[in-house]
Amino acid sequence: MRIPDLSDVRDARARILKHAHRTPVITNEAINRRLGAHVYFKCENLQKVGAFKFRGACNAVFSLSDAEAQSGVVAHSSGNHAQALALAARLRGIPAYIVMPENAPAVKKSAVAEYGAHITFCRPTLADREQTQDVIIAQTGALEIHPYDNSKIIAGQATAADELLDDVPDLDTIIAPVGGGGLLAGTALATKARSSKIKVVGVEPTGADDAARSLQAGHIIPSVDPKTIADGLLTSLGTLNFAILRDKVDGIETVEDELTIHAMKYFWERTKLIIEPSAATALAALFKGGQQWEGRKIGVILSGGNVDLERLPWME
Amino acid sequence: MRIPDLSDVRDARARILKHAHRTPVITNEAINRRLGAHVYFKCENLQKVGAFKFRGACNAVFSLSDAEAQSGVVAHSSGNHAQALALAARLRGIPAYIVMPENAPAVKKSAVAEYGAHITFCRPTLADREQTQDVIIAQTGALEIHPYDNSKIIAGQATAADELLDDVPDLDTIIAPVGGGGLLAGTALATKARSSKIKVVGVEPTGADDAARSLQAGHIIPSVDPKTIADGLLTSLGTLNFAILRDKVDGIETVEDELTIHAMKYFWERTKLIIEPSAATALAALFKGGQQWEGRKIGVILSGGNVDLERLPWME
Repeated sequence: MRIPDLSDVRDARARILKHAHRTPVITNEAINRRLGAHVYFKCENLQKVGAFKFRGACNAVFSLSDAEAQSGVVAHSSGNHAQALALAARLRGIPAYIVMPENAPAVKKSAVAEYGAHITFCRPTLADREQTQDVIIAQTGALEIHPYDNSKIIAGQATAADELLDDVPDLDTIIAPVGGGGLLAGTALATKARSSKIKVVGVEPTGADDAARSLQAGHIIPSVDPKTIADGLLTSLGTLNFAILRDKVDGIETVEDELTIHAMKYFWERTKLIIEPSAATALAALFKGGQQWEGRKIGVILSGGNVDLERLPWME
Repeated sequence: MRIPDLSDVRDARARILKHAHRTPVITNEAINRRLGAHVYFKCENLQKVGAFKFRGACNAVFSLSDAEAQSGVVAHSSGNHAQALALAARLRGIPAYIVMPENAPAVKKSAVAEYGAHITFCRPTLADREQTQDVIIAQTGALEIHPYDNSKIIAGQATAADELLDDVPDLDTIIAPVGGGGLLAGTALATKARSSKIKVVGVEPTGADDAARSLQAGHIIPSVDPKTIADGLLTSLGTLNFAILRDKVDGIETVEDELTIHAMKYFWERTKLIIEPSAATALAALFKGGQQWEGRKIGVILSGGNVDLERLPWME
């Protein structure tokens, strides 16, 4: 697969325009005061399915020819990509087959079911997920839409940063969390195509810091036994994602879960907006960085807001 | 005190313009589908201090002459009015003295303190609150700003419905929760001044249904030993509020706390916006009313979003 460019991002914007929300960009006085900075939050928690993932899934599904699309799409996903693909497929009028680990959050299981996808549960190992998916592909002929190692997905995720830069063009820095690298790769390629002066920084939990280690090593180091509450950031980097990150990202910050939980609760209290732990890592990185951000104009991609409200991390 | 009219509401809008947010109006597909209706939520949870109360407090504080304002303002409040008055006073540059019951939610206590108010804690009885306030007035000469039985407060709260009707003029019905009656009185007078055809409906918990009983009886029946999780709706109606409600409100719906908790959690999950139980009563009334709302175009004033995140009602 080839690395997308800005024209692919603009194609994606046109393709998803009718289906995805142009999410708002919000600011918060208390956060700005605390940091001595100006922070602009791109609210992908208010995106359809509650996460940026809908952008990529929608772009991927609507890029398919009718022949490619007719047998449906399939993915294994612990959460937001599953919902995103399910909704995109429903909008396109094709079947979606989703392989979910049986320990996925209840709210995500029921959301995927509500979007009308065919769900198959499996044990929460990568081997079991892939094997289950292979069986489904053999049975249905469905096309795999990988959650991040896919140029249409990356171009779709890039539309969030592209919109943010339309709203606030003079940012110093854009921060986004990194798991598989779909959002961060998209953010980096949209941003750097518009201005090489804007820094692009990834954030991941210290307990799942494979992206930081991979970029330092110069090759992909898989995420083995990651430990973090940020359930969207458990996966290893994709090949295409790594290639883009190595070329275009200025740095990766790591944050402890304790600080992420603090940032998440603080954000809920101050803004009345629900963000998931993965999204809160970016605010945690700002809190951790302290004076480094003073006087800066920072964009943050809030990745999503899908949280199991029965199990909030500050109560555990 | 006299009953405010639309020109008082417009004066209030001009007075608070620089200080208060013009809050967004949101819709949600899942809620509209479930009800078969079009519901427009006026997001006072995104107002400053996280509640509509800032509108009234701001209007009241900025209506004072310099002579009236100089010794500061005082109120006893279990929550949102306290924060609202504290912030409005800080913006005006005068002291705020707040009497709070010692059992108020932690998040509200700390917010009032952060806005720089002088807090005095007392036992959670009306007698103790009033006595403590009297002592403060004697010591400081501060002016009491009643949380709802005050025409400037009512005119301020009315600005939310007035803005909503600017955004969505052709509503069939506007629903707002009723505790002391500041929000509902304001909503009713703004709405009926613009169109007598729009129905105005109040909502209160079955365990604190003094407004429904008062309107039925034709005189104020005090709220005695109310039992509800909607901590903003515990108080009795004010005199001025009752006079407006009797004249302009089309009905009061009552909802069980169980349904309010369901509506609150459902709204959080679907919209990623935090609302407090008092705000959720209005959505609960829509769920309870069922087919009665089908095909209707309904405005809901979401009163606020101040919740103690350590103690969510569906976990108790």
